Amino acid sequence: MIAQQYPSHLLERAVQEFSKLPGIGRKTALRLVLHILRQPAADAEQFAEAIATMRREVKYCKCCHNISDTDLCPICSDARRDTSLICVVENIQDVMAIENTQQFHGLYHVLGGLISPMDGIGPSDLQIDSLVQRVGTGSVKEVILALSSTMEGDTTNFYIYRKLAPLQVEVSAIARGIAVGNELEYTDEVTLGRSILNRIPFNSEK
Amino acid sequence: MIAQQYPSHLLERAVQEFSKLPGIGRKTALRLVLHILRQPAADAEQFAEAIATMRREVKYCKCCHNISDTDLCPICSDARRDTSLICVVENIQDVMAIENTQQFHGLYHVLGGLISPMDGIGPSDLQIDSLVQRVGTGSVKEVILALSSTMEGDTTNFYIYRKLAPLQVEVSAIARGIAVGNELEYTDEVTLGRSILNRIPFNSEK
Repeated sequence: MIAQQYPSHLLERAVQEFSKLPGIGRKTALRLVLHILRQPAADAEQFAEAIATMRREVKYCKCCHNISDTDLCPICSDARRDTSLICVVENIQDVMAIENTQQFHGLYHVLGGLISPMDGIGPSDLQIDSLVQRVGTGSVKEVILALSSTMEGDTTNFYIYRKLAPLQVEVSAIARGIAVGNELEYTDEVTLGRSILNRIPFNSEK
Repeated sequence: MIAQQYPSHLLERAVQEFSKLPGIGRKTALRLVLHILRQPAADAEQFAEAIATMRREVKYCKCCHNISDTDLCPICSDARRDTSLICVVENIQDVMAIENTQQFHGLYHVLGGLISPMDGIGPSDLQIDSLVQRVGTGSVKEVILALSSTMEGDTTNFYIYRKLAPLQVEVSAIARGIAVGNELEYTDEVTLGRSILNRIPFNSEK
């Protein structure tokens, strides 16, 4: 494809900035920029201001490292939460996903990634030391590892498990098995195999 | 789906602003915002500044209504262009598409849309009067209508054709027919029918 000639440098710069975002190519970027041009000028100012302010002012909760407007995030500062339970997750999307289930009432600990030697991410790049410290204070009874079921997730699970072992806290991991609504026939072998090995007593209420 | 609880209002506002853009849902918006959070703060400032500046400072060429940094766009102010030829297009993407073919050396006229009673867009919402004025100055020999082959495009073509009729300027329309590389068998009937009706003398050089 021939390089596109933009009639305006300002336009070109805006398109370039948009196409730096993941999953946004130059064609989509141009479409977005032209959309912004068609909207009232105040809308563009508001858009730009929201992004810049967010990046500048957003904080990370000093306890769980979730994104927050304040030093302590709304979850950590909620007195109704069970502070003896910590759910370890990879990122804030996972916090939101678990919150949406309305099944968990403890606190979180956001690692900010998973151990991945291939990508050069080691334990020191993640919030693992702060988790160990947090558990070390003594009020935590159980740590739930809720990481992705991938090699990186498994590695991170194991690393955290070993780090927490001396602290005599209960460590559990979220259940893995066939998804609700999925047919057995189409479930992959590894998942199916594990779900047989890790079978649980039948409970007619669930 | 349950409404997502964002841990930060700043984050939520940024996500909302992003999801106002066409084709960007809340999930994609969150992904983009979290990407921006991971990048250096200067990048976010630069992004926001590029959008705001572009919206504030970009001009429309006073001659052809193309987007431009200056009063007269680079195409209109290029002395090598054939000023006797005006190609009428819907929007600036079309200008860029035609420029990329490197087959046209005249000037453009950007309508800013097509006549569409269904969407409440009438001739007065478009740059049609300014086209008639421009042609009326006398130096224009031919107007090429290069609008989409849709009902709106056809309506707009016809309206412009009638408006230009008293000015005794040549009015042509871009050729419609089977696309280069397309197989006859898979071309739709209307296109194929028209391409037979509008057949042209065979020229072995093209």
